This record gives sequence, structure tokens and C-alpha cells, in this order.
Amino acid sequence: MTGAVDVSGRVYQTPVKVSTGGDEPAENIVSRIVDSINKTLSAIKIDKLDAAGIGIGSTGPLSIKEGTILDCPQLPTMKNYSLRQTVENVFNIPVYLNNDANCLIYGETIFGAARGMKNVLGFTLGTGIGSAIILNGKIWNGATETAGEIWTSPYRDGIIEDYISGKGVSKIYESLSGKQLSSLEVFNLAENGNAEALKTWSEFGEHLSVALSWSVNLIDPEAIVLGGSIASAAKFFMPSLEKKFRQFLCAKPATETKILLADLGGYAGFIGAACLVIENQ
Amino acid sequence: MTGAVDVSGRVYQTPVKVSTGGDEPAENIVSRIVDSINKTLSAIKIDKLDAAGIGIGSTGPLSIKEGTILDCPQLPTMKNYSLRQTVENVFNIPVYLNNDANCLIYGETIFGAARGMKNVLGFTLGTGIGSAIILNGKIWNGATETAGEIWTSPYRDGIIEDYISGKGVSKIYESLSGKQLSSLEVFNLAENGNAEALKTWSEFGEHLSVALSWSVNLIDPEAIVLGGSIASAAKFFMPSLEKKFRQFLCAKPATETKILLADLGGYAGFIGAACLVIENQ
Repeated sequence: MTGAVDVSGRVYQTPVKVSTGGDEPAENIVSRIVDSINKTLSAIKIDKLDAAGIGIGSTGPLSIKEGTILDCPQLPTMKNYSLRQTVENVFNIPVYLNNDANCLIYGETIFGAARGMKNVLGFTLGTGIGSAIILNGKIWNGATETAGEIWTSPYRDGIIEDYISGKGVSKIYESLSGKQLSSLEVFNLAENGNAEALKTWSEFGEHLSVALSWSVNLIDPEAIVLGGSIASAAKFFMPSLEKKFRQFLCAKPATETKILLADLGGYAGFIGAACLVIENQ
Repeated sequence: MTGAVDVSGRVYQTPVKVSTGGDEPAENIVSRIVDSINKTLSAIKIDKLDAAGIGIGSTGPLSIKEGTILDCPQLPTMKNYSLRQTVENVFNIPVYLNNDANCLIYGETIFGAARGMKNVLGFTLGTGIGSAIILNGKIWNGATETAGEIWTSPYRDGIIEDYISGKGVSKIYESLSGKQLSSLEVFNLAENGNAEALKTWSEFGEHLSVALSWSVNLIDPEAIVLGGSIASAAKFFMPSLEKKFRQFLCAKPATETKILLADLGGYAGFIGAACLVIENQ
């Protein structure tokens, strides 16, 4: 999705939806991206040279510094493609690239749930788990640009992502009920008061608390923001999450560190990408 | 211990040893600290006004910003004592206070094992476990000044400190041998080739790898520095640590992130404290 955002976070008109078409040649993908930016600019009647810049949030892994897509399973034709430079050559204004989780949480820090804060940790809970670190009001990318990649951290018999992702929800539910359902189906069952589904979300909250405790103990942010499709089940997992999370913190963060829910909604992705332009002003 | 350090990390003459005397009235403790600074200055024949500042590394918890000792079990009489301001009033040069783990790892970053690096994570392994985060060449204290307090993070049936501290070593050894020994005794046994002691250190390395994997996945530093008394057993725990640690990292940090051993030796504490002055130049 492509949209125009002003410096106060306001979205102009209706954003342009564009399918990535991940398997097509890289040139086709880029041409659709360029097209969507042109459509967005003409819809709001703004010349490209009056825009401060273009931010692109992409699935990774990326080289953020180089502005290239690396070996990304969802974008096989774009391996080592210099996306940032290519788009910059077309529009002649600054272009910034970062991964989607970083953009989402950065957007929430600048304009969303954590606005006004400078030091924020965020988790995007979906098919997998993404996370992002905002320090001193900027995205912390890390020495090898893999900061926040906690999904692969050791937990029980495997890694934490086995437990705190969509597939984790399915696995917990299966262990309780013997049935295989998607996380959305388990959510819908919980909405109808199904005991096994409710217990699934309660256990999910306990597993998620492990990632949050380690992260807060290490970084000590002002707040944690939870986003992604699974965050919409927060009412089911938050009680067990909050309870276990705070047991494993030092006294000050145990009382002071907030858990917030992402609140920028369906446009959060490109609002966050637009914040890459603000970050570099 | 009090010592004078120049801008290149060189230590002048022999540092002054001073016992803290943790149970005495706060005034006595401070008077001994002031005394040791005066002795250090006169030994090297430098006027206090020619010193760039005074750095104090203390056991915590502290208010780093306020320069006060908080509710610290080892310094019961100094609760809420304004140590930084009191020393500054005596010497009329800038005084900085931070916790001992932060100072130690910061010193290693400026002058020790990680010199030349800007983004470093460090662990001090002793009776308990301390840790510190250096980002962009400065100590990262966190929103509530508890950044790096990973000791209380959830692990197995308790917290990670139960496994990766001196008492953790004793506990592992006891589970293997039925005997109660200190970590130093288990170290000495390992030096003599004792199988249970060697296995203890190997298991210790695996537990430690959990803390390192989580921390590297989150922060993505250039290197990790291991210090503290237990780091001297590195030859026994490093093989299992290295092996398990890298299994739980993304591809780039798995090959690029270094594990280093602190190398400033017995003066590391006050060299690190002196670096607080450098940090604020």
C-alpha cells in the first residue's frame, strides 16, 4: 500500500493499493512500486519535488545501509536488488528503506500508541514475530542490522517463535484440544467463550511474557508496543501476559514500563515507512 | 580502589586501596573515599583542578542521574545518599557515578578487550551476574536506569541468575556430584581434570549461551565482553558456550559477533569509572 503522509502524521486521501507479485521479475515489481507512488502524488496534486522523501518498508532481510533486498524468501527475484537507489533515480528525492517491523513500531512511536516517547520496544505478532527497538527517537538497527531479531532465541525445546506466533497459537490449541486450527479460528472460538481457546490465549500470554521480560530487562524502554494481527487477541492474552511479565522485572520497570497496543490501524505500514523520512530530516 | 588514569588509559603509579566499610555511618564511608582521592592526587603530584573529573563506580541500585545510592543491601547507611554531589562539593571538579558493571564494561570498550568498538554488550560473572550495554560509544542506562539487568529474566524453573552465577556453578556441580563446593573450588577441580567439574563448566557454558543469544538477538552488538571472577574459567566453558550461542543467532551475527574476555585485569574497576569522565567530555 502506498500513501502520502504529512509531518503531523495525517494521511492524504485514500492510499493506493498495489500487489507486490513476489515471483515476477524484479523490474515488474519495481515498476508497480513506482507506478503506485506516481498515482499517490497525482491524486493529492503534489509535485514529487515538494515531497520531503519516500520511505519504503519491506519484508527482509535487507541491507538497510545499502538499501538492498537480500536473500528474501518472499521476493526471490529481488535478491541483492538495489531498491532504494533505483527508486531514488526515478524520483530524485531521498528514499529510505527499512524492514516492515521497524517501520511499524517506529510509526507507532512517532504518531501512534507510544507518541511522545523516545525509547520504545515493539513486537509485531503475526505468522512469525518481528520486533523493533527505538532508542533516542531513532530506529536501532544494530551492528549487523539484525537488532530485534529475537524470534530465533532459545526457549524450551526450540525457539521462542515456535510459541509466540500464529503457528504457536495453533500448536498450543492442538496440545489442549487435539484439533488443528488457525490462530484466527482459535480467536473466533475464544470470542464464543470456548474454554480450550481461552486457555490457549492465556498460555500464549505466558510464553509472550518471556520475550517481553528478557527484552525489558536488557533495554529498559519506556513502553512496549504490541502490533500485528495477533495483537487483536490482546483482551484474551493480556491478563496472563501482564501478570507473568512483571514478576521477572526489577522494581522500577515492574511498576513503570507500559504495555501498549498499536493504534495506527490499517495504514500503520506506510505511516511507519513515511517516518523513515522524518527520522532522517 | 582509587587510581588516576590518563586519557590514553594509562594508570599512574600504584592505586590506593580503600575498604568501603559498608555498615559504618555514611559520613565515615565518604570521608574514606575523599581521603583515597586526595592520597591518589598527592602521590602523582597533580592538583585536583588539573584533573578532568572523578568517576565513581558503585554497587547498585543507584540513581545515575541524581548521583545517589538507592536501597543497596551492601551499603545500608547510604540509602538515598547524594554521593556524587557530596564528592563534587569537596573537589570542585565534575564527578560522575554509575554502577560497577557499567563501569567495568565501559572501560573494556574504551581501553580494553573491545577497544575501537562503539556497540558492545558485557557481562560480569561473579557471585551474581551484571551486564552493561554500550551503544554509540556511550553507556546505555535505559528509561528507568535498569538497562542490562537481565539477571532476573525467566529461565527454566526460576531466573537466569540461578544458573549463570557463582551459586549457579555450585548448584550444577552439586546436581552432578552430590557435593557442595564454591565456584572457585569447582574451578580448581577442573584444573586437575576432574570429570564432574569439567562437566559443570560445560553445562554452565550452555546456560550462559541462553543469556548471550537473547541479548545479541535483541541488541546486535559488535562484540560481547565477559568479565568478573568467573570469566577466568572461560577455557572450561567457552567451547559449549560458543557452540550453543551461535545456533540461536541470525546468519550475520552468527559469523560476525565476537565473544571477548575482559583484559584490563585488577585495575579494570577504576579504569572503567575514569571512563565516565571521558564519556562526558
